[in-house]
Amino acid sequence: MDGIHLLGEWYGCPAESPEFTRADALRTLCLEAARAAGLTIVGDSFFQFKPQGVTGTVLLAESHLAIHTWPEHGFVTVDVYVCNLATDNSGKARHLFDALEAALKPEHTKFQAIVRGGKDD
Amino acid sequence: MDGIHLLGEWYGCPAESPEFTRADALRTLCLEAARAAGLTIVGDSFFQFKPQGVTGTVLLAESHLAIHTWPEHGFVTVDVYVCNLATDNSGKARHLFDALEAALKPEHTKFQAIVRGGKDD
Repeated sequence: MDGIHLLGEWYGCPAESPEFTRADALRTLCLEAARAAGLTIVGDSFFQFKPQGVTGTVLLAESHLAIHTWPEHGFVTVDVYVCNLATDNSGKARHLFDALEAALKPEHTKFQAIVRGGKDD
Repeated sequence: MDGIHLLGEWYGCPAESPEFTRADALRTLCLEAARAAGLTIVGDSFFQFKPQGVTGTVLLAESHLAIHTWPEHGFVTVDVYVCNLATDNSGKARHLFDALEAALKPEHTKFQAIVRGGKDD
């Protein structure tokens, strides 16, 4: 039940991007990026804050993607968590994470990768 | 944009619990626990794996809850992430996390708390 959880804090994202401010645009980006990474989507939920900002998650057969945007601060947090039940999905997780970062164009970032699960010890 | 992210790995959960195996029961537990913690629900998505196991997320105005269950392994991972935009929500996050742990009754656990966001430095 090992897994890898990638956590990003992205600063200085250009606020004019529709993916940054609009739930429908961010949802499309996330679903397309998850599919392109070879991950299996089993559900999603996105919410539009007024006047701006989005919170959303994509449920994956491999675990989940979660993303929150604060356009007024140029700030995004992103989580990509995949378990490695049948195969090592770490590369797919990184592919998805990198695609979102390329789309939202942060000026600088913080990044952590955390090993989840592990032996029952 | 500070926030706190609580990550749990729960081992030895009793597999006969409906919250462990059924999406509807786990969804009800998560929504009720989020409300009881004083958090604001803005969306959710839960998926039932066959023959068992659930993956789900609850979108919060404060960020999100994500939970994945593997009844065949007695194993759960849970994430509770809250940002502290207007007020410190750390206590509410802990309340939610503890309520889920009390309901799913792991024999033992791993726990991490990660500070998210922080200054743009």
